[in-house]
Amino acid sequence: MGSNPDEVITTELLQGLLRDWFAPWIQAMGLRVSSFGDGEVTLVLPQSEQLSRVGGMLCGQAMMAAADTAMVLAIVTQLGTRRPMTTVQLNSSFLKPLSEQDARITARVIRAGKNLAFGEIDICGANDGRSVCRASTTYALL
Amino acid sequence: MGSNPDEVITTELLQGLLRDWFAPWIQAMGLRVSSFGDGEVTLVLPQSEQLSRVGGMLCGQAMMAAADTAMVLAIVTQLGTRRPMTTVQLNSSFLKPLSEQDARITARVIRAGKNLAFGEIDICGANDGRSVCRASTTYALL
Amino acid sequence: MGSNPDEVITTELLQGLLRDWFAPWIQAMGLRVSSFGDGEVTLVLPQSEQLSRVGGMLCGQAMMAAADTAMVLAIVTQLGTRRPMTTVQLNSSFLKPLSEQDARITARVIRAGKNLAFGEIDICGANDGRSVCRASTTYALL
Amino acid sequence: MGSNPDEVITTELLQGLLRDWFAPWIQAMGLRVSSFGDGEVTLVLPQSEQLSRVGGMLCGQAMMAAADTAMVLAIVTQLGTRRPMTTVQLNSSFLKPLSEQDARITARVIRAGKNLAFGEIDICGANDGRSVCRASTTYALL
Repeated sequence: MGSNPDEVITTELLQGLLRDWFAPWIQAMGLRVSSFGDGEVTLVLPQSEQLSRVGGMLCGQAMMAAADTAMVLAIVTQLGTRRPMTTVQLNSSFLKPLSEQDARITARVIRAGKNLAFGEIDICGANDGRSVCRASTTYALL
Repeated sequence: MGSNPDEVITTELLQGLLRDWFAPWIQAMGLRVSSFGDGEVTLVLPQSEQLSRVGGMLCGQAMMAAADTAMVLAIVTQLGTRRPMTTVQLNSSFLKPLSEQDARITARVIRAGKNLAFGEIDICGANDGRSVCRASTTYALL
Repeated sequence: MGSNPDEVITTELLQGLLRDWFAPWIQAMGLRVSSFGDGEVTLVLPQSEQLSRVGGMLCGQAMMAAADTAMVLAIVTQLGTRRPMTTVQLNSSFLKPLSEQDARITARVIRAGKNLAFGEIDICGANDGRSVCRASTTYALL
Repeated sequence: MGSNPDEVITTELLQGLLRDWFAPWIQAMGLRVSSFGDGEVTLVLPQSEQLSRVGGMLCGQAMMAAADTAMVLAIVTQLGTRRPMTTVQLNSSFLKPLSEQDARITARVIRAGKNLAFGEIDICGANDGRSVCRASTTYALL
């Protein structure tokens, strides 16, 4: 546990991981790293017709994908980039629809043990700040 | 509850819903309706570089998206197309990685009540038939 | 939505609901209402041999039961006592063991809509304040 | 992985674990081992006023507790009794109420890897066979 002392986490590094570690289909979402702390990352998902279903609402599948992606980066801020990990479980609750604004995704590591990391994610409207999705997740640290 | 008696569910109708109801980003996955029954649908997700992360493995985000999508169609086989619904909650467990083959997604309605529908989804390798992801989900019927 | 204006929520009322609404087996846990706010309740679960498994650790089953129970009361603080409800789904993550201290359970309503309420629960050691269990849950409002 | 070849699993052994491994509060539920296979256990939870809330329905907390307990035994049938384990996550969906009959709990190991085991649980009425609760769970193998 604990980050590698010789590795400096920056917004650019995290943004680069979005390109290097994730499938092209995930990259196509256009996620941007907005800010980060120790064990916490905030991403912005720009509003897009590509991610909207009938009625102009952000599809729930994109919310889940963004939640999972954000949590990987949140774990990196705490454990560094050299710790392989894999999602074990992700649970999402959809509170209300989101439309006509970007989404802000905040992922936070709740606990990182020897073999497992637990995290929670909030997705809210970037304009009105209202939560639309909450997720909790477990990762295996390999 | 109960399907509309004047509505005949066919593979073509379900395949058409994938185009009409879902975001372009979901359509880009290339999901195909393989078979269906009353309250059950099987989709095939063709292997694709677009959906693969480093190492050639199907990304977990695509599994969750496919699970949610398949369940919408499974509910349609039971309740018809005129019943608006929204995902309330989706819980996914990732059992093992999937690579070098298509994925087969089977969604099944466990119970459809007046206001809520419960479903379960299995995702397995189309070649080896081994489960790689299991999901359970709750939908609100509007 | 919204509480009944003629109903005053007090610690005694909430403590009374623990006796009136729940099974004797739940009452035997000895949960005590510690504090409450609008949409939030904190309970204390006294350390007990009855609830401890080998090794003196609070059993996870008691954590889940306490989480569900606390959330019912949290919803009451927001919607009053005359709104029937039923648990639709509860998801618990067990972060670490708890031993040699009481447990403090904080349940919070995240969103209460027309038909559904969403909540989150944290369970921590009453002495060290460290989270040992996190839960998220969905209730149907009848 | 794999059971200890010198250990014979019997109904009596599993019933004994219910007494030796679990909290007195869990033992008070009165769970009985009904049958088992490789990676699968069925328990019966006798109808009881102690476990019933207003209206005579089995409380959901007892369902979650029974699900977790049954899964521990299901893992034992596959991995033997000498493999310490701990529940990481348990997700329960409550499909409908249960009253005026015993409950039958069937837990099944979906996958047991090196460090993690995944399982699914169905709870149904012992008389009518209808599912009232479905749960999925992840265990850490220590």
